[in-house]
This record gives sequence, structure tokens and C-alpha cells, in this order.
Amino acid sequence: MMFLEKIKSEGIAHLSYILGDGRDAVVIDPRRDCEIYAQIAAQQGTRITRIFETHRNEDYVIGSEDLARRTGATIHHGKALDFSYGEGVSEGDTFEVGDLVLRILETPGHTFESISIVITDKNYGDDAVGVFTGDALFIGDVGRTDFYPDRAREVAGALYDSIFEKLLPLGDQTILYPAHGAGSVCGDSMASREFSTIGHERLHNPVLKKTDRESFIDFKVNEHHYQPPYFRKMEEYNQYGSPPLHTLPQPIPLSAGDVEKAQKDGAVLLDLRSPEAYAGAFIPGSLAMPLEMIPAYAGYLLDYDTDIILIPETPEQISEAVEHFIRIGYERLSGYLKNGMHSWEVSGLKYDRIGAVHAAALEQRLKNKEDFTLLDVRQISEYKQGRLAGATHIFLGELRNRIDELDPDKPTVTFCGSGKRAIIAASILKRHGFDKVEDSLGSMQACKNVGCELQQG
Amino acid sequence: MMFLEKIKSEGIAHLSYILGDGRDAVVIDPRRDCEIYAQIAAQQGTRITRIFETHRNEDYVIGSEDLARRTGATIHHGKALDFSYGEGVSEGDTFEVGDLVLRILETPGHTFESISIVITDKNYGDDAVGVFTGDALFIGDVGRTDFYPDRAREVAGALYDSIFEKLLPLGDQTILYPAHGAGSVCGDSMASREFSTIGHERLHNPVLKKTDRESFIDFKVNEHHYQPPYFRKMEEYNQYGSPPLHTLPQPIPLSAGDVEKAQKDGAVLLDLRSPEAYAGAFIPGSLAMPLEMIPAYAGYLLDYDTDIILIPETPEQISEAVEHFIRIGYERLSGYLKNGMHSWEVSGLKYDRIGAVHAAALEQRLKNKEDFTLLDVRQISEYKQGRLAGATHIFLGELRNRIDELDPDKPTVTFCGSGKRAIIAASILKRHGFDKVEDSLGSMQACKNVGCELQQG
Amino acid sequence: MMFLEKIKSEGIAHLSYILGDGRDAVVIDPRRDCEIYAQIAAQQGTRITRIFETHRNEDYVIGSEDLARRTGATIHHGKALDFSYGEGVSEGDTFEVGDLVLRILETPGHTFESISIVITDKNYGDDAVGVFTGDALFIGDVGRTDFYPDRAREVAGALYDSIFEKLLPLGDQTILYPAHGAGSVCGDSMASREFSTIGHERLHNPVLKKTDRESFIDFKVNEHHYQPPYFRKMEEYNQYGSPPLHTLPQPIPLSAGDVEKAQKDGAVLLDLRSPEAYAGAFIPGSLAMPLEMIPAYAGYLLDYDTDIILIPETPEQISEAVEHFIRIGYERLSGYLKNGMHSWEVSGLKYDRIGAVHAAALEQRLKNKEDFTLLDVRQISEYKQGRLAGATHIFLGELRNRIDELDPDKPTVTFCGSGKRAIIAASILKRHGFDKVEDSLGSMQACKNVGCELQQG
Amino acid sequence: MMFLEKIKSEGIAHLSYILGDGRDAVVIDPRRDCEIYAQIAAQQGTRITRIFETHRNEDYVIGSEDLARRTGATIHHGKALDFSYGEGVSEGDTFEVGDLVLRILETPGHTFESISIVITDKNYGDDAVGVFTGDALFIGDVGRTDFYPDRAREVAGALYDSIFEKLLPLGDQTILYPAHGAGSVCGDSMASREFSTIGHERLHNPVLKKTDRESFIDFKVNEHHYQPPYFRKMEEYNQYGSPPLHTLPQPIPLSAGDVEKAQKDGAVLLDLRSPEAYAGAFIPGSLAMPLEMIPAYAGYLLDYDTDIILIPETPEQISEAVEHFIRIGYERLSGYLKNGMHSWEVSGLKYDRIGAVHAAALEQRLKNKEDFTLLDVRQISEYKQGRLAGATHIFLGELRNRIDELDPDKPTVTFCGSGKRAIIAASILKRHGFDKVEDSLGSMQACKNVGCELQQG
Repeated sequence: MMFLEKIKSEGIAHLSYILGDGRDAVVIDPRRDCEIYAQIAAQQGTRITRIFETHRNEDYVIGSEDLARRTGATIHHGKALDFSYGEGVSEGDTFEVGDLVLRILETPGHTFESISIVITDKNYGDDAVGVFTGDALFIGDVGRTDFYPDRAREVAGALYDSIFEKLLPLGDQTILYPAHGAGSVCGDSMASREFSTIGHERLHNPVLKKTDRESFIDFKVNEHHYQPPYFRKMEEYNQYGSPPLHTLPQPIPLSAGDVEKAQKDGAVLLDLRSPEAYAGAFIPGSLAMPLEMIPAYAGYLLDYDTDIILIPETPEQISEAVEHFIRIGYERLSGYLKNGMHSWEVSGLKYDRIGAVHAAALEQRLKNKEDFTLLDVRQISEYKQGRLAGATHIFLGELRNRIDELDPDKPTVTFCGSGKRAIIAASILKRHGFDKVEDSLGSMQACKNVGCELQQG
Repeated sequence: MMFLEKIKSEGIAHLSYILGDGRDAVVIDPRRDCEIYAQIAAQQGTRITRIFETHRNEDYVIGSEDLARRTGATIHHGKALDFSYGEGVSEGDTFEVGDLVLRILETPGHTFESISIVITDKNYGDDAVGVFTGDALFIGDVGRTDFYPDRAREVAGALYDSIFEKLLPLGDQTILYPAHGAGSVCGDSMASREFSTIGHERLHNPVLKKTDRESFIDFKVNEHHYQPPYFRKMEEYNQYGSPPLHTLPQPIPLSAGDVEKAQKDGAVLLDLRSPEAYAGAFIPGSLAMPLEMIPAYAGYLLDYDTDIILIPETPEQISEAVEHFIRIGYERLSGYLKNGMHSWEVSGLKYDRIGAVHAAALEQRLKNKEDFTLLDVRQISEYKQGRLAGATHIFLGELRNRIDELDPDKPTVTFCGSGKRAIIAASILKRHGFDKVEDSLGSMQACKNVGCELQQG
Repeated sequence: MMFLEKIKSEGIAHLSYILGDGRDAVVIDPRRDCEIYAQIAAQQGTRITRIFETHRNEDYVIGSEDLARRTGATIHHGKALDFSYGEGVSEGDTFEVGDLVLRILETPGHTFESISIVITDKNYGDDAVGVFTGDALFIGDVGRTDFYPDRAREVAGALYDSIFEKLLPLGDQTILYPAHGAGSVCGDSMASREFSTIGHERLHNPVLKKTDRESFIDFKVNEHHYQPPYFRKMEEYNQYGSPPLHTLPQPIPLSAGDVEKAQKDGAVLLDLRSPEAYAGAFIPGSLAMPLEMIPAYAGYLLDYDTDIILIPETPEQISEAVEHFIRIGYERLSGYLKNGMHSWEVSGLKYDRIGAVHAAALEQRLKNKEDFTLLDVRQISEYKQGRLAGATHIFLGELRNRIDELDPDKPTVTFCGSGKRAIIAASILKRHGFDKVEDSLGSMQACKNVGCELQQG
Repeated sequence: MMFLEKIKSEGIAHLSYILGDGRDAVVIDPRRDCEIYAQIAAQQGTRITRIFETHRNEDYVIGSEDLARRTGATIHHGKALDFSYGEGVSEGDTFEVGDLVLRILETPGHTFESISIVITDKNYGDDAVGVFTGDALFIGDVGRTDFYPDRAREVAGALYDSIFEKLLPLGDQTILYPAHGAGSVCGDSMASREFSTIGHERLHNPVLKKTDRESFIDFKVNEHHYQPPYFRKMEEYNQYGSPPLHTLPQPIPLSAGDVEKAQKDGAVLLDLRSPEAYAGAFIPGSLAMPLEMIPAYAGYLLDYDTDIILIPETPEQISEAVEHFIRIGYERLSGYLKNGMHSWEVSGLKYDRIGAVHAAALEQRLKNKEDFTLLDVRQISEYKQGRLAGATHIFLGELRNRIDELDPDKPTVTFCGSGKRAIIAASILKRHGFDKVEDSLGSMQACKNVGCELQQG
């Protein structure tokens, strides 16, 4: 039986695929916790014989090597980069999987060695049924081209050519299988819909409306993207190989006393709970990191050589956090506070709290011209689209390094899109000795819903 | 989050879908064991508000009413049939699901009230992203039009119009979501690939190459399809409602003695094991029905008012058999032989065996002109494509009623495509007093592989 | 194969059992979500033929009737109560299950019709291997005898006789299978260990050291137990039958606006989050009910005819809350706030907060003789064992009816064992217009750990 | 929370345990696929800190080292053997696990370094609540003492002392947690019941009725046990360490042609199907090994350095076979025949069949004094308890080496307890060129049920 399954990794919004027919299966861009591909292959009565990497990823650790160790599969990637493992493929190479044929397209732009993989069905002509586009073409967006800043126009042009001269010509009927969905740091404007075709993108992808090559290039070189520092680690791992991961790390349960001691010994306490819970009571010195924010922000705020202790709301959050972390290469997850904040509270150890400011109250303070810092930590693009007057802007990912720009003695209200980044920012300020910190629960979304006046540009 | 999941029911090769965005979800053609839709909806944080039936199905029991009872959803179907439940919809009706819009197309042909449902995304123009086509258009085939024999050309023409004037005009970019995949009794020639688009079908679906209306009609009215007798029950259930199914039937474990007694009391013993196992030892009077053959053949051979006792190879087969059966409306699954055939053997009760004939030996017998019946029970179309000389053809589904055409005293070898239907036929002959029955393990496939001479036409 | 499995329902700390041999299985005291027994029975290749109720339970809805409907099993219970369903059994009745024999002992005391069920193994003599003791004998405690206040000494004496004249004489070798473990409202002093024998209890169960009948009775009649109002509903259900439960209720996702409207229409908003999260931000008018507190306190605070809307921390909490609720007979779980408190915050609707007082600060306030109410809501027995000077005691279960005893204008700090009941109390005060409410996170445990001075008696 | 869970490995009927309280957990005698212990520990919020081996096992590969690698736990075993890993413990050593105390008893006999581990609960006196007895004392039986044939009376005496002077004195109230249950090769007479106490064993364990030391020793030295050759491998692994097992082997799907080739290249084809299925059609040269027979017989018939190809009835059998195999140290599970025997049949390759003889027909043949070999392959003890007149006895485990004692030209009927070992024997004879082989389906059980005349002694 022919089968094609999409495996989505939430958080990094990464899409990988397993495709098989008869006794063989292939995997496209496997994630690091790769057990799932082996399971699907076994259920389908197939063996994974090939693994394709559409490009060297910078936002997560690719699982090719671990999966190859388990299955004996061959790893393939584009030739334009010098990988320490695997075999290069070139334009036009074909691979048979039962009645399917996979054909390589070289589609540089996002990276130089990016490839796309076209699916055709031997029994139904030569036209493409589908195409794995990696980070070249997404649903509603195209790939980033900000990784070679000194060759910016060149790579943007390459991406134009890859899309307009190779992908669109596959025909409108071609189903699109990209490497990321909405929520990825690899694109700001992806659709929340995860099914589309070359034809539907040609008609409605906003970026593809820039059909003129120069306009397309202009648009791309003027885009703004942040590059979290952890990208460097990912690039290193994905080019030269990552540490084998036989089993997932299993953080051990710790008492409040254990956690206090670990913190003194240099571990970072990472609080996975919601903004309200953190604001209600937190361990002094801990860093707020609501569980779902790990993929996007942990890589800005955590070092790879520090022990991480988790403060969870529920036990289930531990394994979810572990998945998020190993996918971006963090493995020193040494323990967690058993029974969460409750066990800290009953121990009698000190806890701290953070004030909350409702949107209406915040606007009132601004109108009253009260003396305080309104710290907006959103991305610059969000900030420009609409902000409260008088806000100070420092992007959350840069706050650690720019904290000296702020006055620790002044009352400060942290602010973001909906309140999640604001609590992280508040916890950073607290760690740096800011005393009078409040958090805008709901932040910009609440402001809009209560009708606050916004500035733009 | 927008999501679209395909739920496949193996055996009947039925494809249903759940589609959601925000807080609402809709289900297309739910199966009877409908727990799975409720689970997916809950995981996605949505409630199922609408259920669409693309048409009154004749090959399985639709689960709309059970699912509506659980969820409070509204059921919709085409207006051209007088259903006892649900609400009719018409060409052009639209339904919003978050940012998605579903639009009704009336696409008669397979049945008069057949509808298709077009998906568009508000944020990305008016062009179709996908379409649920029910039994109008499949991947590699089109729907059957043999249900109104006295209006044969009319319905074939209607199907032509539905496809060529409504579905193809949606555009090549439209992803195809049909109600069946390969293996269904609703079409002989579907692709084993389960992903395609309107564009790819336009280019490569063999039936769509008949672009001339009259040629298309000629082709359709000359097709041959079997109609299992259970279709009548399904039509009744799906138009007027089926018995509620709160929990799946749970056959109880029986000893060999219990099974012997139940058989005397009129129960049919249904042996789920492989052809080899059945041939190796079986309970006299039992009917062979290798597990995976239930969806296609149980409806020819079993009555709805007889108790069924299962003879399994492994305990896991019980629940799989139950799923197959309730989907086609059989609920009297009263028990199973605990520990399978082994417990019958150790009880000392009598068992019987069936001989096996290798393809090479079979050909030799034919060459030697030995006096025996070679009973080929395949579909007539398979028979015409290639057969051994001298074979007697009776389709398996008709064997019960045509058994008088055979001589019970003559040695008989049963024969089919690969040996599974042959064992069913052998067991039927045994039940009717045929003594000298042998089974061609491997049957036509083995014959081809050993190079037997075949006749055609 | 012989098997015996314990099924524990967390929260109510209810222990039920399934026991089987050969083709038959029996269930002791099934819970209402009874799918699990049918699953185990099927996996073991058995059918459930009998269900035993050790007594009419008052703390949860028994699942006998639902399970009997699924399986056709016969329900058995003691004869001394007039049940609307099932069959009575008497001292000495025996039931064979393969090689096992179950023998009935009448063991009144907890209730008049209480029975115990002795297990012997035909192949290994007549001595008991184990005994299901229901609520007669627990590990580390014995059953409550406060349900017939006008016959208090009589029932305590009956329990003495049941234990000393029937259960202990079974012999030290008898494994104990009671109906509850630690955490149940059916006993305050059960061991956290869930495995023991008649012999180990005879040696070390503190209550069994009162070997003199009168001392035992004195001890029992002087015990104090609370009887939540929901017990009346359970008694009614368990004697006369409960509504059938085909599938678990599935609360639907609601927006902040939906929730606001439902509240206005009379629904109660039940906040399942932790004390810290509730204190950090909550919906005005909502009732705090940390998930794990439902079994013990929902029955004091919620009516059976009011719609319940859940405010969860994580989606997983919904199904867990549903399980807790249906086991104590609440089924009107109409919806939940999708994305939890976050969606309320971004909607711009008003939220409220509760102050937190650290144990050290609390003691300081007391020393400073500040004017405030310290409201201790623990059970009276906990209060007597150790309390802060000056505390006002009202048991949480009684707070709703005794709230007039408190001054709404005075600052109030709620206090309990570890902070969970304190947050419930705080939310009740808030609902009744108390403005200056603070919560002692950590409460008594924190006080002990920081060395607060305690009073006793 | 205190918890104690039994983990049973079917087939080898091995019982291991995980026991925990608070933040610590310990494991007793872990199996090699040790993921399950880590999962339970994590669910319970505990870390595994210690692993106890009650003795060096000879019938399976202990998983201590793999589990220690995952968890950092310390491994403990008795001091009387020179292990390459872990730490020795001595009589009286104690280990605290929350409120539990584990105390070591040296209980030699089965092996010299065997230990038992007593559980007491700090809060409930010093009496034992339970005891892990390893292979010293089982339910209904005691451990084997045949591993030191030149010191037979010494070790039998040591076992007597261990049981009568150390285990029974723990008191009747002590729950028994042995290392094996019914079906293990470590004892013939264990009860099928898996719950008991020291008291119940003292009263009803048949072996413990030999209270006189010399009678006990006489009984033990006269017992007969078989020692499969694979025991040597297990002893080596369990004393000096076994190869690490990061993930379970995953046999790959093979076509009939692949399998034929692998067989030619020296792989052994192992047919996991039922006796009936094998008899109905099998691959010439394959070895019958009904799935559930692997633990008891694979170790007699398979070498450690040969590739094994599996012929399954259902795909699910593959992973079950893998579990059975890795537990006894076989890892060269290179592939399996995809779609099982069906794919062999359709390939046109030759298959073979085995005749079946009903018990009644068999007795008739014996009465008729037909000239054939009736080969009884049961254990000698079964043979002595009752056999058909004229049977030739060769134990299945010895058949490979004693096949020369049989006449390959004589018709041969294989015979065992219920037909499973008989089919293995039949396949061995076929492999050795015996042509006229038949199998007695049902064997001795069927004979008894049809009233065959039996001889004894």
C-alpha cells in the first residue's frame, strides 16, 4: 500500500514526512526524536531505506543520523554544502519507492544546498503529484533569505528562480508539502491552513504576487527576521553531526530543598507555568518560560552548558518540555520540582509575586502621565503595526543584553502581544534586581479589545 | 488552528474526514464506530457542529445519527432523497467553519442526491483549496452508476455533467478528498495512491479521458458491478436510520463444547483464520472467512438474523472482526472459540481438513485431462482477463445460490486470485456435502509466477 | 489463567477489583466509568458473569448497572437493604470462578447490609487466600460507623463483631483487599501503603489494638466525620439506580464571551487551576476548585441542577475533571473556557486577584496583633491537633452556610493544611462580597517549616 | 505515594517488581526491555535509585545494567558470586525507600548468592509486610536445586534452611513476591494463582509439607529438571554483563524471494504460526515454533550466531517474538516474510504440508498394530504420568541430538501434550529428511477426552 504521512512537531511548527510503497519507505527531514518514523514504517510493513534532508536546518536538530543508525537507511542532501555525513544528490536524480518516483530539484535561496523532491506515480504519467519544498515555498509565504547578509540580493534572486522557474512549472495540480507550518520562526506570514497546492499558491500566496524578479528581491532584502543565538548550534549540529540520542533525558524529581541547592550551584530554574500562575507566586531568581514558549524563546535565553531545573504546573508538562528542548539541542535537563510550586510553598521557603495591570488601567496610567516604563518586548514588526504611546521597545530576545538601557528603580510594566512574552520579560527584570515590576496580562490583544488608542509606524 | 484529518476504515476502504477551525468542526461521511471523531474534535478543542453525508451510502452504515446524538451536531445531506432524519442542502449553500467556507455542489450520478463540498479559505481568495467528492470522483476512477438500471444512461450522463461541468471547473489546484480508496467495492480501478488533485485527475484519471459525453455514458453503462445483497440493508439503514450503537458488541469466550452446541442451535461458525490454517484443520460445518475478507464477502454469505460465532487465530482478531461487522450492520456476534482451533483439537471433537494443490500440480492435472471440476470464483472481469483452460466460473458471491450447477461427487479444486476466496468457496462446498475438495493456495498469482498458460476473453 | 487486578480511582481513593479464572470473571464494587472492567475481561479472554457490591456506597456512584447492561452479569449485594436491582446473598453462599471459590461473609457495621467476600483456591485447601472487606476493614483503619446516629453503639458493636469474629479468624495469611485507600473520605487514618494482610492488620492496625468490645465501641462513637450533602444523592442512586451513562459528558469549548454569558445565565464557573494561578488572576464570581479537590469538596459546594463551566489550566484537566464529576453523579458539565484564563485576559474582560501571605509574615501579623480574621477551614480534628493562636475555625464544607458569622469588611486571611482549601475558601469569600481577602499559600505546613508557634486542643 | 507494581513477562513467566515511596523507587530483577520501569517511575514522580537482583538468573537476560545506564541507579546482588558489575549486599543490610525499609536475607539454595528482600513499613512496626523471594520460594513450589550436581544435597539443604529458618519465620502475614509464576522453566508445579502469603504457603505449598530436612533434601535431589543449552549464555551474560540494548531489533520485511535466498545463505526460517497453519502449508526447511513456545524451546533449537527469519501469521506477532527473543539473548532477528505464508504461496515457490491424525484414529492404528513410530516428545515426567502404549520417548529439547535413534523411512506421528511441541518435532523430522510425518493435533489432551487407554510409570 502506498502511504504518505505528515508528522508535525508543535512549537517549532516543523513538518516532516514519511512516504512508502510496497516494502520501502523514505523520510523527509526527520526530527530528532525519531522513534515515530520507525513505528509507522513497521506498522506499514516497510523499511526506511532513504532519508532526505531538504536543507541544513538552522532551527532544530535534524534526526537523520539517529534514524539511520536504527534503520540502516542512506541519508541524502544537496551537494552545495560540505556535510560530515550522508550522500549528495543533484538535479534530476531519481529514486524509486514502489510505484512512486522521487525526483530531485535543486532549489537554492533559503540556503545554497536546498533541494526539493518531486513525487510522481509511475502508473499515472509524468506530472507531479506532489512536491516536498523544504524551506523554499510555504503555504502563504516563502523561505527566509537572511542567512547570507553579504550576498543578500544573490540569495533572494536564487529563491525567485527556484520558485518561478522550477516549482511553479511543476503545474497547478501539484500538492505542496513544505517543511514548516504556521508558528515557525522560519517565516512570519504562513497560513494556518496546512494543505495547499502549487496552483493555489500561485493564485493566492501574497509573496508570489511579486512576479517581477527585482520586486521580489527588493521585498525579500527588506524583510526583517531575528536570528536566535541557538541557530549557530543547530547549524553546527546539522552540518557536522549531533550527539546520539538513545533515549530521551528523564529529569528527576526534586524537593524544594534540592531545587534551592541546585540554584545556588548554578542551575537555572525554568518555570513552565502560565503567566497568571507565575505572577501569583514564583521562586526568586527563576526564569518564566510558559511551556509553549520554549521553542521560540529558550534559544535566546539559555546556554547549552548550564543545568536546567523545571518548575511545572502538571507532571505531563515535563515530557513535553523535554521534547521541545531536545529538538533544539538542550539535553542538560537534570531535574524538576516535584509537585511544582505547591511543594515550594509548603516548604516555607520565600516566594515572590508580580503585579498585574489590566489594559484599561494601563491606558489610564498613560493618560495620567504617571512616571513608569512601559516595556514592549514584541518583535519590531509587531511594534510598528501598532503600539501604545510612550512605550519603550526592546525585543525579548535582546533584553538580556540591553537591560542596562532600563532604570531598575522605576516602576516597569512589561507588555507584549497577549501576555506570555511579558511574563518572561518580567522575570528577567526581577532576576536583574528590578523591584517594581508589573505584567500586562492580555497586553496588546486586551488593549485592542478595550479600545485603547494605538500609534503606528 | 485549522485542521483536516482523513479517517480511513480499512476493508471497506472508506474515507471520512474531520475539518475544523477555531471552535467548530465538521465531519464528512462518519462511520458507525464514531468515537474517533469525537476524540479528535476534543483534542483540537473544537465541537462538532455539522455532519455532511455526501450521499446515501449503500456499502456501509453511516454513523451520522450516533455522532449527532453524542455531539448535538446537525446532519446535512442532498435534498433529492427523502431521508427520515437530517436537513437538506442545495447548490450554493455555504457554511462557515472559522476562516474556512464550505460550499455545496449538487453532483448527482452515483445517486440522485449526491453532493460535493468545496473548501475555500476566506483569507486566500475564492478559489477552491479542496473538495469532498463523495462517490462522484475517485483517484483513478469515478463512481458507480449501476443503481438505477432502468435509468442507466440518464444517471451516467448526470455523473458526466457533475464531473465535467462542476468538479473539473473548480480548477487544477483543488485537492481531492473522495469517500473511498483502493479496495472499495464502490469502484474497481482506484489508484492505491490516496492523494491527488482535480488537476492530476484531469490529466491522468483514465475514465476522464472519455471527454465526450456519449463515450463516457457508453463506458459507464457497459461496466459490470456486483451488488451484494447486504446493500439493501445499508440503503434502508442509511435512509431511515440504523439501530443506535452505544458500545461495540463484545463476543464472549466459548469452550469447544459451547461452540458445538451453538452450532447445533443454528449459529454459523465463521473461521477468521488464514487459508493455510483452515486447510490444516477446521470445524466441520464452519464457513471460512479470512479476517480481511469480511467487508467484501460477509454481506453475500451471512444473514442478519443468525448468530455468528467466530473462530479466531489470535485474540486481536476478535475486535477487528467486530469493527468490520458493525460497519456493515451485523451485530449478532454472540461468541468466539476461546484459544481458537487449539481448544477444539484438545477437546477431541472431530475436525476436517482440505487438500492443497500447487499451481504446477494443477496445470499438470489439466494437461493430463484428469476428471475434476476447477471452480474459479473470481469476478467475471478477472476471469475474462485471464483463466486456466477448462475452469468452471461461478462468482463467489453467487455460489450459495448456484451450487446445484456443480457435481458434489466429482473432485473439485477451488480457485481465485490468490487463494483467499478459494478457501471460502471450499468451505461452502464442504458445507454442502462435497467430499473431494481441494484448494489452490496462491491460485492465479501462483499460476502466473510458475508460468501457467492462460486463456483470455 | 487466574488473575486479580486492582483498579484504583484516584481522588475518591476507591479500590475496585476484577478477578477471573478460565472463562469467567467477577468484579467487586465497579466504578461508574466501567469500560475498564470490560476491557480487562476481554484481554483475559473472560466474560464478567457476576458483580458484587460490598455495600451501598455513599461516596460515589456504583457502576454495577451500567456494567451489567454491557455484559449481562448478575449483580449481588447483601440482603439487609431493599435494593431496586440485583440479587441478595447470605452468609455462606459460594460462587465458583474457575478454580477459585468466593464465599460470602455478612460483615455489618459500616452499613447493615455490608458483606465481605473470601477467596479460596480449590487446589490449595480451604484457608482463605484473600478477602474483599469493602468498608469494614481498611489498611490502618476500620470503616466509619456514623451513618445511623441513633443506633451509634449498635453499629459500632456490629463492626467489632464483623472484624473480630469473622475477618480476623480467617487467619493471618489472608491478603486484604479493601474498598478504599489513603485519601478517601471513608476513613481518616488509612495507611498510604496499599498492600497488607489480615495478619499485619491484626498486629499493627491501631484501631484493632482496641481488642475490648466496649473500648472499640467507645472509640468509634467518639470519632468525628463530616458527611458531605452529596452523600444523600449517592445513597439514592446506589439503592434505587442511577441514570445510565453511555458515554462520558464532553464539555464544549467556549470563548470568554460565551463564558461571561453563561455565568449571567446562572452557570457556576469552576476554576480547576492551582492556588497560585487562581490568586494570580481569576474571573470574578468563579469558584476555585483545584482539580484534585473535586472528589472531596465539590459535593459540599455544588448543586446537582446547576450548569458547570470549567476554567482549566491545561486541556488534559477537562477529561480528568469529567471523570471526577461523573463518579459523584454530576453530569451537567456544559462547557469549558477554551485556552483557559489566557483567553479571558486577552478578551479585555475584568479579572480579579487574591493576595498571598507567607507563613512568616502571617505570624508577624499575629504577633503585632493586627486586626484581621484568620479563617482556618480545616477539619475540626486537624484544627485541634495544632493551630495558630487567634484563628477562627469554620470547616470549608460548612463555610457556605456559616458565612454570616464573618465580617466582610475586615481583612481576612484564609488558612488550611497546605493552601488548597484556603484558595477555595478565599474564592467563596470573594463571591460573597468580601473585599480584603488574602490566602496563606502553604498554610499550616509552611507554618511548621518556618517554626511558627502552635496551639493544641 | 507508596506503590508496588508487578511486571510480568509472559512466556518466561518472570515476575519483576517496582516499589517506591516519595521520590525514590527500587526495582527487583528487571527484565532486559526495561523501558517499562522507567515509565512507571516517571509516572509516579520517582527516580529509580537501586536495582536488586535476587540471584544470577539462568533463564533470561537481566536488565540491570541497561536500566542503571538510563537512571543512574546502583545495582545490588548477593556477595557469594563474583559479578563484573554492581555492589554486594549482606544479611541484615537495610535500605530506606521513603517510609519503607528493605532488609536483606541471604537465602542460598537455588544459587549460592541468592538473596531475599523483606519489606517493612516504618509506621507499622517491624513485622514483614512482604518479601521478594526470588527463586527460593514460589507459590506452590520451591526453587530448583539442580545447578550444582556435585553438591546436590548441600544446596538442597541450604534451600531448606533458607525457607524454614529465614522465610517462614517472617510470619504468616507476609505477602509473597516471587520471581516466577506458573509456566516458568524454573519450577514445574507452581500455582496458576499469583498472589499468596508466607502463611498460605506454609499451610498449603506441597513441598513445604516436607518439614523434615532430610525428606526435603531427598525430594529435591530426586526431582528431574531439563537444562536448556541457552542457560549457559544467560549465566555468562548475567555474571559478566550483556550487550547494551538501546532499541529493540526491528526485523525488516522480506519478499518470498528474499526469504528463499536468506535460507540458502544459512538463515534459519522460524515459523511462528499455529500447528494447524503450519500443517496446512509451510516452507520446506523451516522450523515450526508457535509464537508462545519461543521462551521454552527456542533456547534448545537455535544458535546464537545464526540469522533468524520469522514467518508470522499476523504482523503483531513480530514485535511479540522480538520481545521473547531479546529476553533470552537472541538479537539476530534480521527479517520476516511480509504478508506471511500468503506471499510464499502466491510466489509459486514450493510449500510442504504435514498430515494430521485425530486421537481416535491414532488409537485405532495402535490397536491395529500398524507399523509406525509414535514419537512422544514431552518431558519425561509427563510421559511417566500417562502415555499411549508403544510410544517412543525423546524429549523435544533433545530431539536434535538424538534423531539418529529414529528410522526416517518409517511413518512417524509426533505427539505431545496438546499438539504444539508435536508440530515443532514434526518440522525437525522434516528438516532431517523424514518423509512420512504426521502430527497428532490435540495429542494427549485429545486422547484423554476421547477416552484413550493410557499407561503409567
